[in-house]
Order: sequence, then structure tokens, then C-alpha cells
Amino acid sequence: MKSSSTVRLRPDVVAMQGYVPGQQPSESGWTKLNTNESPAVAPGVLAAVREAVSSDLRLYPDPTSRALRERLADRHEVAPESVIVTNGSDDALNLLVRAVCGPGDRVVAPQPSYSLYPVLAGIQGAEMVSCSLGEQFELPIRQLASARGAVTFVSSPNNPAGTHYAADDLRWLAEQTNLLVIDEAYVEFASDDRVALVRELPNVCVTRSFSKAFGLAGVRLGYALGHPELIDALHRVKDSYNVGRLAQVAGLAALDEIVWAEKYWEATRARRDKFATEVCGNLGLHVYPSEANFVFVECGDRDASDIQEKLAGRRILVRRFAEDPLFSNALRISIGSEEEMFRLMEALTEILRFKN
Amino acid sequence: MKSSSTVRLRPDVVAMQGYVPGQQPSESGWTKLNTNESPAVAPGVLAAVREAVSSDLRLYPDPTSRALRERLADRHEVAPESVIVTNGSDDALNLLVRAVCGPGDRVVAPQPSYSLYPVLAGIQGAEMVSCSLGEQFELPIRQLASARGAVTFVSSPNNPAGTHYAADDLRWLAEQTNLLVIDEAYVEFASDDRVALVRELPNVCVTRSFSKAFGLAGVRLGYALGHPELIDALHRVKDSYNVGRLAQVAGLAALDEIVWAEKYWEATRARRDKFATEVCGNLGLHVYPSEANFVFVECGDRDASDIQEKLAGRRILVRRFAEDPLFSNALRISIGSEEEMFRLMEALTEILRFKN
Repeated sequence: MKSSSTVRLRPDVVAMQGYVPGQQPSESGWTKLNTNESPAVAPGVLAAVREAVSSDLRLYPDPTSRALRERLADRHEVAPESVIVTNGSDDALNLLVRAVCGPGDRVVAPQPSYSLYPVLAGIQGAEMVSCSLGEQFELPIRQLASARGAVTFVSSPNNPAGTHYAADDLRWLAEQTNLLVIDEAYVEFASDDRVALVRELPNVCVTRSFSKAFGLAGVRLGYALGHPELIDALHRVKDSYNVGRLAQVAGLAALDEIVWAEKYWEATRARRDKFATEVCGNLGLHVYPSEANFVFVECGDRDASDIQEKLAGRRILVRRFAEDPLFSNALRISIGSEEEMFRLMEALTEILRFKN
Repeated sequence: MKSSSTVRLRPDVVAMQGYVPGQQPSESGWTKLNTNESPAVAPGVLAAVREAVSSDLRLYPDPTSRALRERLADRHEVAPESVIVTNGSDDALNLLVRAVCGPGDRVVAPQPSYSLYPVLAGIQGAEMVSCSLGEQFELPIRQLASARGAVTFVSSPNNPAGTHYAADDLRWLAEQTNLLVIDEAYVEFASDDRVALVRELPNVCVTRSFSKAFGLAGVRLGYALGHPELIDALHRVKDSYNVGRLAQVAGLAALDEIVWAEKYWEATRARRDKFATEVCGNLGLHVYPSEANFVFVECGDRDASDIQEKLAGRRILVRRFAEDPLFSNALRISIGSEEEMFRLMEALTEILRFKN
């Protein structure tokens, strides 16, 4: 009965490309400014997680991360029924596509943006509609609305430039569409967030991550805020025990360290703005306005790929998005610690000024 | 453009029921024999995980759990390309359905079995075909084959009775079907496993879990073994960073503790067989032959729900599967520690002999 020697897969899956994560060197000694990780973890978080490493790990975790869900509801002034805790915010994005999009439905997003969105559409057999951002990364809200997505994703601040979009534009877009997902993976580094839209409109969902804001990328923890009916559907679609015990503990401890975190966000904003104006400005590099923990640096008459390579030779990793012709001569640089940014400044100065 | 005040979801998702996990009491003091957890974690695992709680948690984990993948490949004498590491084995089961089943395709499994299979079919918009097991839980291989599943699941040892199925029957079934997934979540407690079939046939996939065999249910760690083409498809469909750093460390440490684990598996088998013959036998309860870390106890002329309730009154949890009329008067009891099984024996004796 089998038609071939191997397994018949879904044609969508055969055809698709997986998501390609940024480089993760296995040895230490690299200055990693390529995947927007945070330079530190709050000390209290490490202590709490260490404390939780006990024989209780033999027991299944709480399937809905109840305690953390309630804390997040408090933080964002929504009901616990409006919160789902996920295995990183990628898990939330995936569940949203899965709960809402059938085959033939559309996933809509601006381009460039987080390159996971087309991958998620592909896995689900949905059609991906990408609407080009303006030259200054302006949001094409009319095109996005008329693409009639079952799900419309807007990352704000967006990737790769760190552009933050206005609440009024997002509200207008939500009113025209089935479901607007505002991906706020970087919002703690911005001047404000869009959670108020979740309280205002039943078809706005906000996703968040502990990866960058709380320095917990290695733990896998995220969440989504939305209307209780939508959140209930996501709970039914998720893996029964999607978030482990230690991740739940880490999340609770991170929220206990909110004062530490807020200081870190503020320091990151200051370092970002200083790097953009003082370092890049002095070196003749153009930086797009960013409200994230990274900047997108247009290299002008200098070759971005050459700069990236020379930085790598000095064990500094930054990221380039070569596939987009409009932005192929730019580099996305994460804002690291004071020390890392100093090392980067020295290297960039050397590469651009003296070793031409 | 929006037709209603809330979000339009996929009809399959609106109609489906989520998976209902076994009861997880939030306070301690319960003897939990209802969700097949292990009574202990290897001490070396706890030490290794505690050691790994460092500021490295700020960094993303290895996306394919490379080191663990290679260790598992060694353990099972397959190539690393034949292994995918997942967020619990549920993640692997989910990815398999997602990579192989389109809408209208069939997911086939015996019944009763792991109640997640129909849920996964429902999420994917696939048709679930359940084939009844025999009265002694015999596998209906002809019905399973003629149901022509895109994916056919056989859990072996099966849930809820712990029945282990013969390699010859599984080989025959695989030869008739597109993809046979042998769910070996409990196989470490059995006399042998079916990994040889993965090496023999390109359309057999075996899934495993660290939850029971290594006492790591709270950590979420599982894996699948299969043909490299199938495993590659699963990698493209999975979340980019599906397994966190601490889970990867826990898995490696657990494999270092294989001697400890093998002793625990052997002790569990001995306690299981002793409980079945000495305790249940003496109390007039019928136990089905089990090769798992649980037994399925048919209560005969005694009322299973009454026994379950009286055990709960003594803070001992066991599980009942009321929805299946053939087996509604039975209890599934996990094999706990020596002390827990003694407590259970005393309680059962009291309930069945003296407090009638």
C-alpha cells in the first residue's frame, strides 16, 4: 500500500524552508551582538531557579502556569483568562496561526519583519502576504488591511530596524481585520506599549517574551494577552505541558525583579541612543530610529558584508539580512553591555578609519 | 469587514475539546499515583542542572540540542540525523501529525490508548479513526492497517493497561501503512523495545520521553527516532528553540546516570509485579499484564469510582477512565516508591476488606 520507500509528507512541508536562527557559536569568547540577547540575568532569578532544582522536577508542571498567569494578569491589568503562558513567544505566534488559519487563509505581515511569520504560514498551509514597509520603515496600513488576513502580524518595535508603530494606526488596522497580533518581543525597550488595545478591542492580541526583556532566552518563556475566547482556543491547541517547572519559576522570579529589569531597560535605551549618535554618527554610518535593544545600521558607501566579516575576525557577531535588496547593505547590531559596546566601537573605528 | 465582535477561529478548533491532563494538586502531601510520574530524580541530574543555572541563561539554547542529539544517537545506534529532541514527547507527537497529515487525512490509533492522539488529529483538521482493542487489549492490526492512516499511532507499552506489542505485529502493520509511530513513553519499564524497527524500516518512528524513565516530567524533554528525511521535516516544523538550556543539560546528565536509571527501572518492574500478584491478587482485584510503570486494575464486583474516592479521602490519587464503557470499572495506578506502594496497600486493604 505504501507508494514509496519513505514516508509521504504534507506537500506544504516538503516545499517549505525552516526558520534559520542567528549563529550560536558553541565555544565562548564571542561578543554576541547578533541575536538581541540581553547581557545579564537578574541575580534573584538565578537564585530562585537554583532553589527550584529539586526532586519536584519528577512531577509534571502546572499545565496552564497558573501562578505566573495570575501575576502577568496583574501586571497588565487584564483578567487571568486573557493570558496564556507559552514556550517562548514563538510558541504563542505558532498557536495563533494554528487556531485561526485554515488552508487557503492568509497570514499578512509587513516586510521586512520577523522572518518566522512566513515560516508559520507555510507550516499551516496558509498563504503568506507580505506588504513592503516604506523607505523609513513606515507601516503600510492600507495594504495590510486590504490583504484581508485571517491573522495580521505587526511587530512593534519591528525587526530589523526597531521601528515602533503608533497606537492609532494599529487601532485602525485592527478595526479592518479579523485578528491583529502585535508582537511586542522588544517593547520593554520602547517608550510605551500597546496593551491598552487588548483591553479596548476583542481582536487584538499582544505577544511578549522573557528572552530579551528579562535575559531569559535560554529558558524559553513568553506569553500572549487577548480576548478570553481567543486565549481559550490557544489553550486547547497548545501542548498540554508546554512550559516546564523551572521556566515558570524563572518567570515569577523575573517579575519579582522588575526594579532591576526597569533599570536595565533604561540603561539599554541610553546605550542604544549613545551608540547611534556618538559612534555611528562619528563614523558616517546611518542608524534608523530604534525603540528596541538593537539598531539597524545602513553602511552607505561601505560594504556591510565586509564589515560583518572583519568584526567576526575580531570575534564580534552582528547580523545581516542579505535577502532583502533594499536593506542588504545594513547590519543589525544588538545593544550589549557597556563593555561589549566599547569593544564594538573600538573594532568599528579600526575597521572603518584605519584599516581601509 | 469583521463579521462579529470577536475573532473568527478555525471551525475545527471551535469544535474540539482540549486534552485533559490528570489532576495535579497544588499543595504537597498527596501520594500521586495518577499520572505515572517517577518517584525520584537521579541525584547527579539535580547537581548538573543546578550547576547550569548561570548567566548563560541569557543566551538562546542550541536550536537542535546538538550534544544531546548525538548522545541519543549513540545510545540507540542510529545516526544523529535520525534523532530530534523535543519539548516532551508530546511535542514530537504533535510535530509528526503536523508534518504528515493534511485536512481530510486520517490519524489512526487503537482505543483505549493515549487520549492525546484524537486531540492532535482534531487540531490538525484530520479525521480520527479509533480501532477497539480486544478484551485483553490485543492489537487489532488488520483494522488498523485497513483504516489507511497518514499516521498510525501505537503506544507500546500501551496506556491504560501497560500492554506491550510484539515486534512482528508492528513490523507487519508498518509494511501496510504510510507512517507507524511507536510511542515508547513507557518502554524502559518493559522487557525490550522496538528501536530495531526504526533501523529496519524507513516509515517507523519511535518516540521517547524523559518524563517517566528519568523522572523529569517537570523539565519537558522527549525525542523521536526515525528516517533522516522524516526527522528533517520535523526539524523544519518545530519551534526554532523548542528545548531550553536547562532541559538539554538535564537530558545529558540523565544519560550519564544510566546505571542509576536502570536500577530504578528494574526496581519498578519488581514492585509492579509484586503489587499485581501479592496485593491485588490477595484482594481479589484483577490486574492486566503490564510492562509499564503502572497497572490497570479491574475492580470486578467492587465499584472503581468508590475506591478512587476513598483513596482520595486518604490523599492517594489514582486515575479512572470513565468514558470507556468496557473499562469504566477499572483504575490505573502508577507504581510509586516502596513507601508509597506500602501506603496504597494499607489503604486498599482497609477499603476493600474492613470498611466495606
